[in-house]
Amino acid sequence: MIKAAVIGATGYVGGELARLLLYHDGVTLTTLMSRSGEGKPYRERFRNFWHTGLTLTETNFDRAAEENDVIFVAAPHGVASANITGDILKKTRVIDMGADFRLSNADIYEKWYNTRHEGRKTLPEAVYGLTELWRGRIAAARLVANPGCYTTAAITALWPLFKERLALPGSVIVDAISGVSGSGRDVRETNLFCEVNESLKAYGVGIHRHTPEIEEGLSRALGADVAVTFTPHLAPVSRGILATCYVSLAEPAGADELWRLYSEYYGAERFIRLLPPGNSPQTRWVRGSNYLDIGVFADERTGRAVIVAALDNMVKGAAGQAVQNMNVMFGLPEDAGIGQLAVYP
Amino acid sequence: MIKAAVIGATGYVGGELARLLLYHDGVTLTTLMSRSGEGKPYRERFRNFWHTGLTLTETNFDRAAEENDVIFVAAPHGVASANITGDILKKTRVIDMGADFRLSNADIYEKWYNTRHEGRKTLPEAVYGLTELWRGRIAAARLVANPGCYTTAAITALWPLFKERLALPGSVIVDAISGVSGSGRDVRETNLFCEVNESLKAYGVGIHRHTPEIEEGLSRALGADVAVTFTPHLAPVSRGILATCYVSLAEPAGADELWRLYSEYYGAERFIRLLPPGNSPQTRWVRGSNYLDIGVFADERTGRAVIVAALDNMVKGAAGQAVQNMNVMFGLPEDAGIGQLAVYP
Amino acid sequence: MIKAAVIGATGYVGGELARLLLYHDGVTLTTLMSRSGEGKPYRERFRNFWHTGLTLTETNFDRAAEENDVIFVAAPHGVASANITGDILKKTRVIDMGADFRLSNADIYEKWYNTRHEGRKTLPEAVYGLTELWRGRIAAARLVANPGCYTTAAITALWPLFKERLALPGSVIVDAISGVSGSGRDVRETNLFCEVNESLKAYGVGIHRHTPEIEEGLSRALGADVAVTFTPHLAPVSRGILATCYVSLAEPAGADELWRLYSEYYGAERFIRLLPPGNSPQTRWVRGSNYLDIGVFADERTGRAVIVAALDNMVKGAAGQAVQNMNVMFGLPEDAGIGQLAVYP
Amino acid sequence: MIKAAVIGATGYVGGELARLLLYHDGVTLTTLMSRSGEGKPYRERFRNFWHTGLTLTETNFDRAAEENDVIFVAAPHGVASANITGDILKKTRVIDMGADFRLSNADIYEKWYNTRHEGRKTLPEAVYGLTELWRGRIAAARLVANPGCYTTAAITALWPLFKERLALPGSVIVDAISGVSGSGRDVRETNLFCEVNESLKAYGVGIHRHTPEIEEGLSRALGADVAVTFTPHLAPVSRGILATCYVSLAEPAGADELWRLYSEYYGAERFIRLLPPGNSPQTRWVRGSNYLDIGVFADERTGRAVIVAALDNMVKGAAGQAVQNMNVMFGLPEDAGIGQLAVYP
Repeated sequence: MIKAAVIGATGYVGGELARLLLYHDGVTLTTLMSRSGEGKPYRERFRNFWHTGLTLTETNFDRAAEENDVIFVAAPHGVASANITGDILKKTRVIDMGADFRLSNADIYEKWYNTRHEGRKTLPEAVYGLTELWRGRIAAARLVANPGCYTTAAITALWPLFKERLALPGSVIVDAISGVSGSGRDVRETNLFCEVNESLKAYGVGIHRHTPEIEEGLSRALGADVAVTFTPHLAPVSRGILATCYVSLAEPAGADELWRLYSEYYGAERFIRLLPPGNSPQTRWVRGSNYLDIGVFADERTGRAVIVAALDNMVKGAAGQAVQNMNVMFGLPEDAGIGQLAVYP
Repeated sequence: MIKAAVIGATGYVGGELARLLLYHDGVTLTTLMSRSGEGKPYRERFRNFWHTGLTLTETNFDRAAEENDVIFVAAPHGVASANITGDILKKTRVIDMGADFRLSNADIYEKWYNTRHEGRKTLPEAVYGLTELWRGRIAAARLVANPGCYTTAAITALWPLFKERLALPGSVIVDAISGVSGSGRDVRETNLFCEVNESLKAYGVGIHRHTPEIEEGLSRALGADVAVTFTPHLAPVSRGILATCYVSLAEPAGADELWRLYSEYYGAERFIRLLPPGNSPQTRWVRGSNYLDIGVFADERTGRAVIVAALDNMVKGAAGQAVQNMNVMFGLPEDAGIGQLAVYP
Repeated sequence: MIKAAVIGATGYVGGELARLLLYHDGVTLTTLMSRSGEGKPYRERFRNFWHTGLTLTETNFDRAAEENDVIFVAAPHGVASANITGDILKKTRVIDMGADFRLSNADIYEKWYNTRHEGRKTLPEAVYGLTELWRGRIAAARLVANPGCYTTAAITALWPLFKERLALPGSVIVDAISGVSGSGRDVRETNLFCEVNESLKAYGVGIHRHTPEIEEGLSRALGADVAVTFTPHLAPVSRGILATCYVSLAEPAGADELWRLYSEYYGAERFIRLLPPGNSPQTRWVRGSNYLDIGVFADERTGRAVIVAALDNMVKGAAGQAVQNMNVMFGLPEDAGIGQLAVYP
Repeated sequence: MIKAAVIGATGYVGGELARLLLYHDGVTLTTLMSRSGEGKPYRERFRNFWHTGLTLTETNFDRAAEENDVIFVAAPHGVASANITGDILKKTRVIDMGADFRLSNADIYEKWYNTRHEGRKTLPEAVYGLTELWRGRIAAARLVANPGCYTTAAITALWPLFKERLALPGSVIVDAISGVSGSGRDVRETNLFCEVNESLKAYGVGIHRHTPEIEEGLSRALGADVAVTFTPHLAPVSRGILATCYVSLAEPAGADELWRLYSEYYGAERFIRLLPPGNSPQTRWVRGSNYLDIGVFADERTGRAVIVAALDNMVKGAAGQAVQNMNVMFGLPEDAGIGQLAVYP
């Protein structure tokens, strides 16, 4: 049994990790840590855990590392890079849910996050945890940077087109809609029910921090720099990301042709479901599950491909993919503990 | 492995049964039937099953009975009573999700459902499937009448008070709120998004068909007739039932006292979670799970107990309890395949 | 033109008052006050006012009173009673949206609100502002206590039955569902979108502060004490209250009979719409409007009347009724500025 | 008083027209027609009209034309073109809410709508009713083609950039999210609450019929052909459209510069509200109102402008703009009857 700890267990991502790990056959969830959690029953933060006896303990990276085979860090950016030292990584393996180790270039991180990167020493050890694309490296990693929710959708959606050099590098627009859980459990006016309900908005236009992460992913596919215009939107759903991704094609291609290409890349994947041409994914079909559904469209009038990806931001966009990565790291079946179907309706 | 079939697999309850049975370790889901389903991929009705190869077949009770150890019937009322014959019950065991076998008195059924009862012969064989209350009889049953969603909440909420003769029989008011999935996948104007969203309504005031079912349950507890005023409401959530149940107490009791009584009845139950006095259940903590949460309150000013119960109408209120009953009938652990925590948020 | 000020203009009720008063033909909205509002554009709090040049000023009861014919106080309880002195009432008329002057007995207030009542001197001048029931007294009032949202629904729903001595005084149960705007714009975790969405809960069971207010209203109808069990619920809608009210009838009555009785009381009312027997009100038909819709039901099996009332908690449950009261106080047509239909869908 | 009729009064757009016209000071709403409406009380379809005595009559274009100064046609496409003859237009003025007269080229209409255009004779008389852009021609028109909801947002958002030749014609991507009322009151499974709630989807990718309408509008601005990739999305809100529009700029420009340009175009408009640079519109601030809010962004890294527009699809996107056009046609103040603020929250 893999012994696992969650640091930052009181936020939504922490709760989702606990939910998935608690009933994972290959895992013993030993520890739930939060900053001032010492001794508090976990049920006080998450009443769906009412019947469990789980208790929070105070955050202590050293103790977590010593007592566990893997620790999941679900803390605000800056926390992991300040605490995940080489010493920690000798004792345990780490899956960081935050942004600290996602960008390989710390300068770019510092520019977009407007803060010092405290983990430049460990950064080179980090492997980017988009499972389907970097499975081999993840298997061997001590430190996995679990991707952002928008990023998982966007990179997966556009990867084959860049890998095949079919997409023009300057043409990428990612327009995505997220549910509200993506902004966390922070008590802010903008997250109040009456401020979100029956409303739609764009936010962080041109400046959202997932932009350089998408760019790095696509640049790796192409082997050259890719610039992205990214606009996230908020809609009144608790869970779900729908990313609609636009690229101009280097040469004309129809939907069938695109579909065949995507089939080659993703046809054998356990968690990527490629819909037939003409079908658009919907977040309701992935809600609560680790699936990432993709629809491919060709707008032949304008020479663009439009790739639509849907995922649950809490699962494939966060905790589910983290468990998928853990499974890969420890040689378990990739779907262990995360094979559930979407809960619908 | 138990071989199982679902008849009426294209409605919401059928889909939920398929979801739970597909990953149940002790079950092989052999058959999904619907009236005109012959050969259609199941994914066309439920895209969360996209990656499965499940296919619908035409409804055929005989074939389902011959090939399976248990069949779940998720059809409109009248279908099960017309088709579940003694002959069928010799070949297989049946869990009926509909109302046909819930009321022990066919005359009362005919009055409330305004239709002939076609299954008077088999009716005496039916066992009412509120698992926690009739577990022993369910274990031996060939035919289980799975309770209504409102009914499960109301009877469980009030059972101890009537069993202990603490509740005055003429004083019961059950006021409940349901999510929209409770009214099924029928394409009716009243179920359109814009007709339901941002609205609240009562419906079926004084005439809802779960009324006699609640009355029969509570009458069994008391050993005498209990009359109930029942008002269901609709709120814009997909899943969930919250039932607020009022009774006048035969003698004064405080919340602590009530809580101790309920502890005796339900403290050892796997799926009933009794909240401490002062805490009210919320459907978000049971969403997607088989739990039934109960809060007990005493309005000492007026001499009433107010018992609040929350469940997911698709799970404990339908498919989950059906699987729970199947587990009991076949000697499996009661939580096999339905132990999941609520998916939150 | 009536000169009007709103004190506490940055909450939801304050915003709704501003919305209604700004386009009221008989009113000049001179002043929007908030505690630290000095000089801030109102649009920063309410972007629906973007194109207006309205600006907040600091709260100053004296100045508001000197410069206006009427002031609306939309502040937390305790504020109005501490500031609305006899001196203020000589200079202006006041409509208080809070609870301070709703209960005629300050001792009962102190018990339920668990705080000292600072306005015992002015309390006798206050008139309870349920327009349809106390129109005459409101017309002459210097100080109107605008009713609570739940209270408006419950008292209006049950008034005729108590006035006619048809309801048994100990039998009242009010079970109501509210939208989230009722809990204000406070930034609390329980009001976050993800904590409210797709969930249903009861709260304040047996201890909600609108209870004594409902009791006082019904006691006035009966001329004797009435005790009420009141349970409020929260559902994921922004606006709306649906109150389902139960009473045992002193003598048998059918729905038609009840309907005729209610017609006599409310048939001529501009803002009360009595639906025909068998029809239940829904909040979508009153959303954004000042209407209060009533449905009358008789549960003849149990000898109860079930009266269902729907209103928009921000309009008839707060700001709209306040404007209705202002219209009465200043001799304007009762529907001036508040005659709009519900915005549907 | 202008005498007005609504044909197609039982759909959502018809209901919204009735709501706005009923309380318009300059209008007498004489007639509400629907196909089989003869004699039915309007309240049966829209209970927010409960207290009105409005009654439906059968659809009769001739009678409507003879008895009214203006008729609003809110019918499926094809109906207006088949019925609005030159003869009708001699008797009355017509505002068509459908698509029949929006495209000046009937061949393009026939291609996108896959049906014959029955009104080629009257088509040249039609004036496109995006009020702010074609006010002069609308004033004189006998037949106004009221724009689509998405189209109003997209053309208004991009007009200044094309008029000033700042946008590259092949670079336009319009990515928009709509509320569910946009798909009408048709009883289809895809519009059921449980199919829409807690879900996000794209639909009609590359083939939505508003595409050629957006293209014609922008082509008029540029004086040359503009091709558009348009992707509509559906989110679980009743009302609202948020359109995020991308263009590559012919020369570098920052947000301030763009804002100044938009100020010149829209600064004096009654219903267009230009937000300061860095601010994104949200549909909650326009809900129930005729406002169209615009936010301008420059993604200087990629040389794109991102213009975000928000409107209420039932008001500025349909019935509100129709009334605005009527006001222009009859010389009334442009905001007569439609000056209301958004109902928030």
